[in-house]
Amino acid sequence: MSKKLKKTKITSQSEDFSKWYHDVVREADLAENSDVRGCGIVKPYGYKIWELIKAELSKRIEETGVENVYFPVFIPMKNLETEKEHVEGFSPELAVVSHGGGVELTEKLAIRPTSETSMYTAYARWIESYKDLPLRLNQWNNAVRWEKKPRPFLRWSEFLWQEGHTAFANKEDAVIEVWQMLDIYEDIYEFMAIPVFKGKKSEMEKFAGAEMTTTVEVMARDGKAIQGATSHYLGINFSKAFNIEYIGEDEKKHLVHQNSWGLSWRTIGALIMAHGDDNGLRLPPNVAPVQIIITPICRDENRDKVMGYATKIFEELKGEYRVKIDDRDSVSPGFKFNHWEVRGVPVRIEIGEKEADSGELTIFRRDLNERENLSTKDLNEGIGKLFEDIHKNLFEQSKEFVKNNVNRIESIDEIKDQKGFFEASWSEDTESEKLLKDKFSMVSRVLPKENEDKKPKNEKCFITGKPAKHDWLFAKSY
Amino acid sequence: MSKKLKKTKITSQSEDFSKWYHDVVREADLAENSDVRGCGIVKPYGYKIWELIKAELSKRIEETGVENVYFPVFIPMKNLETEKEHVEGFSPELAVVSHGGGVELTEKLAIRPTSETSMYTAYARWIESYKDLPLRLNQWNNAVRWEKKPRPFLRWSEFLWQEGHTAFANKEDAVIEVWQMLDIYEDIYEFMAIPVFKGKKSEMEKFAGAEMTTTVEVMARDGKAIQGATSHYLGINFSKAFNIEYIGEDEKKHLVHQNSWGLSWRTIGALIMAHGDDNGLRLPPNVAPVQIIITPICRDENRDKVMGYATKIFEELKGEYRVKIDDRDSVSPGFKFNHWEVRGVPVRIEIGEKEADSGELTIFRRDLNERENLSTKDLNEGIGKLFEDIHKNLFEQSKEFVKNNVNRIESIDEIKDQKGFFEASWSEDTESEKLLKDKFSMVSRVLPKENEDKKPKNEKCFITGKPAKHDWLFAKSY
Repeated sequence: MSKKLKKTKITSQSEDFSKWYHDVVREADLAENSDVRGCGIVKPYGYKIWELIKAELSKRIEETGVENVYFPVFIPMKNLETEKEHVEGFSPELAVVSHGGGVELTEKLAIRPTSETSMYTAYARWIESYKDLPLRLNQWNNAVRWEKKPRPFLRWSEFLWQEGHTAFANKEDAVIEVWQMLDIYEDIYEFMAIPVFKGKKSEMEKFAGAEMTTTVEVMARDGKAIQGATSHYLGINFSKAFNIEYIGEDEKKHLVHQNSWGLSWRTIGALIMAHGDDNGLRLPPNVAPVQIIITPICRDENRDKVMGYATKIFEELKGEYRVKIDDRDSVSPGFKFNHWEVRGVPVRIEIGEKEADSGELTIFRRDLNERENLSTKDLNEGIGKLFEDIHKNLFEQSKEFVKNNVNRIESIDEIKDQKGFFEASWSEDTESEKLLKDKFSMVSRVLPKENEDKKPKNEKCFITGKPAKHDWLFAKSY
Repeated sequence: MSKKLKKTKITSQSEDFSKWYHDVVREADLAENSDVRGCGIVKPYGYKIWELIKAELSKRIEETGVENVYFPVFIPMKNLETEKEHVEGFSPELAVVSHGGGVELTEKLAIRPTSETSMYTAYARWIESYKDLPLRLNQWNNAVRWEKKPRPFLRWSEFLWQEGHTAFANKEDAVIEVWQMLDIYEDIYEFMAIPVFKGKKSEMEKFAGAEMTTTVEVMARDGKAIQGATSHYLGINFSKAFNIEYIGEDEKKHLVHQNSWGLSWRTIGALIMAHGDDNGLRLPPNVAPVQIIITPICRDENRDKVMGYATKIFEELKGEYRVKIDDRDSVSPGFKFNHWEVRGVPVRIEIGEKEADSGELTIFRRDLNERENLSTKDLNEGIGKLFEDIHKNLFEQSKEFVKNNVNRIESIDEIKDQKGFFEASWSEDTESEKLLKDKFSMVSRVLPKENEDKKPKNEKCFITGKPAKHDWLFAKSY
């Protein structure tokens, strides 16, 4: 729309990362604020990224045998109050409906912050015997958690996500699925060329009502952490509260063991913060709404020739790739380059008279911010290989960045010097985590899975000096 | 789940159609009531039907160049109040949020009943010049309209749908799109083998805030009407209220002309009511979650042989079709037949020893409730042709039913004898429609498009005796 014709202005990451983020969201035309404080409007370019992520994740979830359902957006307050820790965790963030159809409701309804307490009364009705297990359902929906400090995608009061809710006959099967779903989330981040730290959350940081929360944590380009998705083992906390029992093969009643797991569009926030640079977005081809932008560069005297060639290339690619041709006359080539660079389009094909004559293509790779030549022989195959290379390169760049931004520290005094993540041997003591939070506005991020069965490098906790249990990762977070 | 093991009980259509409908929704495992009055739970089988409808419609909408977006579920009350007719139409049905994050909101928020008033403040910001037009966006989301008399799929307080919102430089282009989208809705019903009546709504029945509403109307098996989807020309009613202007090529300011159009999961209600019979659902293959059910029929002595053959057939079909094999030992063949007939599975393949020996297949067609033989030679192709035939047959059956249930009447006195739709020449006078509503709980359904340019068959209105304008269709409706 017309406003886009103004030249983009993006604050540099080093100057102000938070401002950079808001600038990119605006200038890449991903989203903007709505009339409702804390809620955003996701525009076509941003929504398409979500659709691409969703399609891949949906396929992966369904392949494991999970089925999709829909439950109401409203949850009776009495349901929410059934599991004590759960309601304590979520009640400060609720949106509450007081009137329906012009009448004051006798029982107030919450807008779902998550659907455990909406779904599990149905699970209690549906599950009777061990033959009904496992029950594995998923919803794609909207949820609301009132945010005091909203931030596009990462913390809006309303968000889109998927929430999986499963019930098993025993703990073993449930815990296997917790990690299976976490692996799928890791794969989805890999699909976006983003490495993650994968493992358990601390007692203080786990989901309200869970026995165990696992997480994939992403590192933003400013070194802060983004919780990328979570998978929870709920134990029998909810089945006890909601009376979800099954008759086992032993003909006795047992409580089911439950999981829930979710990934939201904050993934898009992670995508922006993991790959973006001072020129805006950088998108891996898998999740780029426009994978290739063709920019014809011509003068009046060679317009027909150049446009003809550009159109030929476009026609060749459009069946296989998400490709657009920017044939605007009203703006300069430089303006167009900038327009699509900000939007993170992985490949630009610049077509001028030289290209029309030679049959070679000049391409610009957004992952390298460099030009290359590309042969038009077997063009579709060539682009396929190029995309693989771009994906791999973005993934390698990210891994390298992450590797360089995890420090090891031995004492709490070193925290003030940390910019990225840091590893430390920790007692896992909740009091010490509260101290971290009060003093440094920071909590533990994750106990990496590979550290679970290892002894900590330092036998003393870096905060309390008490015996350390494992090596954890810590960082400030979004 | 275990409860399904009870034998299904479905009231016959002739005994009590409304009860039949509820029975089918329950016994086909489509949906059930939730903890929130008026809101439903859509179970995997029902939700899959919605996903199949959605995938087809989404593709069709996107092919016309429309892009998807997401706007907040919350609408500030002041937005809703901006267009006078709109707020009058929707305020009796609103759900209102009074508290957010533990605090009473200074301005109450409505849950969107539809998103005109949420989206158009953004349209006013986004549209500046004629170059920004047309603007054509769509949302797939949930909406809430508080229902006093809820009914599964057809009238739940919360529903899933898509709502398209478009803006054009002039009336002509807008009206072309109104009919284009209505044609797509007609195609979606054809995709479900359901014929529709397509045309304009009356002044009284049009959308609150629209200049013109068009509709596709479906006939249920009890002769009542279901509004299948609507496409509205909003004129400049909202652009005036929300100040959505563009600078034209004439360098002057103009108001945009707007449309909105939507199809919801009440489509599933129409699907049930258009095709269902006394044994339950009948699904056309396009929207059947399970297109083929294989039921092996064996005894201990031939189990390996029969199961081996059934598995071979399953393997052959599963790449191409949505096929399942019901290998439960615990229930009888008759029980299985009933189980999948109630669910409307288009084709059952019964495999016993005879089939394993002969290489012929015995199939049961749900559209005919009859058995046929099917050659296993070129099986995938054979099934493809069979599905085409089933689709065609269901469509023909529906068209035949519809044809037989539209009467022509000349006077209001004949209404009491009408069971289905009736056609009558009408003055289009709003007072006369109010009289119909008061006296017969009935309003006009649609002015069929083909009647728009025709003179009415009777020059006098069947209600008032005043000059008639067109031949309209009337019916009781869901």
